[in-house]
Amino acid sequence: MSVSTLAAVSAVPVADVVAPSGCAPLPVLGRDVTVPLVTGGEVAYAALDYAASAPALQRVWDDVAAYAPYYGSVHRGAGHLSQLSTELFENARRTVAGFLDCRDGDQVVFTRSTTDSLNLLAAALPDDCQVFVFETEHHAALLPWRGARVTFLDAPDSPEQAVRALEHALAALAARDPHGPALVCVTGASNVTGELWPVRELAAAAHAHGARIVLDAAQLAPHHAVSLRELDVDWVAFSGHKLYAPFGAGVLAGRADWLREAEPYLAGGGASRKVARREDGGVDVQWHDSAARHEAGSPNVIGAYALASACTALAEAGFGTLAAHEERLIRTVRDGLADVPEVRFLSLFGDDAPRVGVLSFVVDGWNGSHFAAALSAEYGIGVRDGLFCAHPLLRALLGGDPRDGGECGAPGAAPGGPALDAIRVSFGAGTPDEHVERFVRAVRELVRGGARWSYRTVDGRCVPDTSA
Amino acid sequence: MSVSTLAAVSAVPVADVVAPSGCAPLPVLGRDVTVPLVTGGEVAYAALDYAASAPALQRVWDDVAAYAPYYGSVHRGAGHLSQLSTELFENARRTVAGFLDCRDGDQVVFTRSTTDSLNLLAAALPDDCQVFVFETEHHAALLPWRGARVTFLDAPDSPEQAVRALEHALAALAARDPHGPALVCVTGASNVTGELWPVRELAAAAHAHGARIVLDAAQLAPHHAVSLRELDVDWVAFSGHKLYAPFGAGVLAGRADWLREAEPYLAGGGASRKVARREDGGVDVQWHDSAARHEAGSPNVIGAYALASACTALAEAGFGTLAAHEERLIRTVRDGLADVPEVRFLSLFGDDAPRVGVLSFVVDGWNGSHFAAALSAEYGIGVRDGLFCAHPLLRALLGGDPRDGGECGAPGAAPGGPALDAIRVSFGAGTPDEHVERFVRAVRELVRGGARWSYRTVDGRCVPDTSA
Repeated sequence: MSVSTLAAVSAVPVADVVAPSGCAPLPVLGRDVTVPLVTGGEVAYAALDYAASAPALQRVWDDVAAYAPYYGSVHRGAGHLSQLSTELFENARRTVAGFLDCRDGDQVVFTRSTTDSLNLLAAALPDDCQVFVFETEHHAALLPWRGARVTFLDAPDSPEQAVRALEHALAALAARDPHGPALVCVTGASNVTGELWPVRELAAAAHAHGARIVLDAAQLAPHHAVSLRELDVDWVAFSGHKLYAPFGAGVLAGRADWLREAEPYLAGGGASRKVARREDGGVDVQWHDSAARHEAGSPNVIGAYALASACTALAEAGFGTLAAHEERLIRTVRDGLADVPEVRFLSLFGDDAPRVGVLSFVVDGWNGSHFAAALSAEYGIGVRDGLFCAHPLLRALLGGDPRDGGECGAPGAAPGGPALDAIRVSFGAGTPDEHVERFVRAVRELVRGGARWSYRTVDGRCVPDTSA
Repeated sequence: MSVSTLAAVSAVPVADVVAPSGCAPLPVLGRDVTVPLVTGGEVAYAALDYAASAPALQRVWDDVAAYAPYYGSVHRGAGHLSQLSTELFENARRTVAGFLDCRDGDQVVFTRSTTDSLNLLAAALPDDCQVFVFETEHHAALLPWRGARVTFLDAPDSPEQAVRALEHALAALAARDPHGPALVCVTGASNVTGELWPVRELAAAAHAHGARIVLDAAQLAPHHAVSLRELDVDWVAFSGHKLYAPFGAGVLAGRADWLREAEPYLAGGGASRKVARREDGGVDVQWHDSAARHEAGSPNVIGAYALASACTALAEAGFGTLAAHEERLIRTVRDGLADVPEVRFLSLFGDDAPRVGVLSFVVDGWNGSHFAAALSAEYGIGVRDGLFCAHPLLRALLGGDPRDGGECGAPGAAPGGPALDAIRVSFGAGTPDEHVERFVRAVRELVRGGARWSYRTVDGRCVPDTSA
């Protein structure tokens, strides 16, 4: 195996996937994994929790497997594999920059996840920065702004109202502090409702008032093209593990100035250009100005390479193709459950608002953990239950006093009334139609006929009672 | 492929490796990779930069490959693969706790690297904490203590002097501030000289003065058993990518109290137990008390699983076996170059001080980048040159005004005089004798006969001049 092999392997384009009707546009790992049913037998596992974490694309895995033997220490390593790894790592940065349609001068910083990316940006805010964030955000976007004054905006009931609410809040800020720095943080697609947010309009509102904006694209980037240039956002954050590359890398990309002026996110090697003792016994440090400033420590080269591989695969498959597939799956869910009034989908902007393949719902008579446990144990379907790391949003959507508990003995949702928690189904480029069709059939059967098994709470989780 | 397959695959013990003389005790990826020589032909790549990043163990790769199709979203995912992934992730934590011989109540936090681990601990220091660190540390251990008052201790010339210097500094602190919190940060094995530091004695000194101690085990853990209990250190930090598991995970393990009392390292989902709007429009957060407090965001499950797999493989192979192999390789280097006076090894504690498989040296008449480039281009050997993210130490060792440049046109070290930079060779469980024997032969040939090719500086790196 020569070092030239890798280039050859990597140059193989993604298979000319002409997905037969019903097949996933991009093959993922785990498509032949079967799981046992509590009622007997085994079925192919239906992974329908993409919004939490998606399986690796086969292409991503193949690229990682081809590269792994060539892995080497990056940056100041003098050997062939160190040079190759450094090149792949920096190429990954360029690939991501292309994927995001970055502007000249934008930086791409490799982090570990969207959460990490937003915490990095929070640590880089100028003094006295005002932050504006809707209460509807994921905790990763809601909570990192610890050094700043944060204005939490109430859940809007339409995209237009979201823009108006932001404009109103920014105008109020401008009246009392016209020159201070301000940042708006907004999701591209909700991790709960899947609904698309009016990012371009919010960016225009932010900029009109002299504020900047960061886009949480964790849920958007796997499903839609994200162009920093077109959306005119200052930064974008996303995660590899939701983008079919679960190898521990994420990205913060965008304007360099705040990042360059900030203290390094992590202090250590790689970020430091020169370190010297001072006469007084202390230490002077010169930090890098490039993305390396915030990437101290040996970088996660395999993670970055995998993430870039996923970006390439998605771009080659085409977001038009991916979105069409996902639209069909969304219709399968919505149409298949339209005549089941016990199933209530959660939405801020209305049931027909544009969304990605993420839908949350409650089922009258059930609590979410119980329902999700039955989907898993009796149908081999993996969804998520709870409050989805978006507690204020769930409170707004569910009413009452929701909890992130998972107890199956808790009372189920009363018809039309508040629910304790919700169930989320989510899918994407690797999802075959059969998984979603099985999900629809399972929901109908569970609502109509109830679970066939009994469940109990163990360690705070609802699981099949196998003691009977 | 059933979900039960994975358990079977993972249960396969590491092969009964009875390493024939000259073979590596644990097979790693890349052992059949060849690289071209500038002088013609190809050779097997000799990866001798383990101290920067080690290749993945074959066993680690096999475990990751076996798990990858079963990867699923962890924690609140209700499906089989989510439950399996959650279990593997939490098992990985237990495996690491066992590997480090943790005490009851110790926490194991998954980070991305040693650098990240030490930055996490730095962010968790109590107010007014005093930090003591030798100037000889890697920048990752030297620089993270940004909120604290730091005392930098001069390079000692023996382990005993290191202990005396620390005791002296702690006694001085006790005289002026007897009750304030204090932390000592010390390396287990130097990333430059490979020398072992007197960790147990330094821990005793720290504790005698009411201070705590964190062990930077990045270079120690791949080579020696590390027992928190026996060393009596409060925390230990290390990296997967130096421990044959380059998948983006690291560890901070140790006492829970400071970690539990600190603000979460990252703010976001996973770390937050409950989030609710307040009457005044703000947000109240209840954070977790467990390791999850500092692990916000979807965890790097594959990284943690790989790291735990490496811990298991090393423990099964036995550190006695690994150390004996490494000792033989160290002797090969030292004996093989003993009659080459132009090669000067760098050492604080003396050439024969106990060390791991990490040796740095300068070569009279050469600057390091030039020498390292020739080792790569003419012999297929990957070492590292520069200042190894330990600038104050290199200044102490080299004298003069070292630089992290990499220019091959710069003047080489004068005989016995200061050098601009150094060369580091490092190896471990995956290194066959032939790599180190070739290194010795190459050094001798280069010193005696000079490089056969000419080199020039491109983008700050010394590379073969192929324009001729």
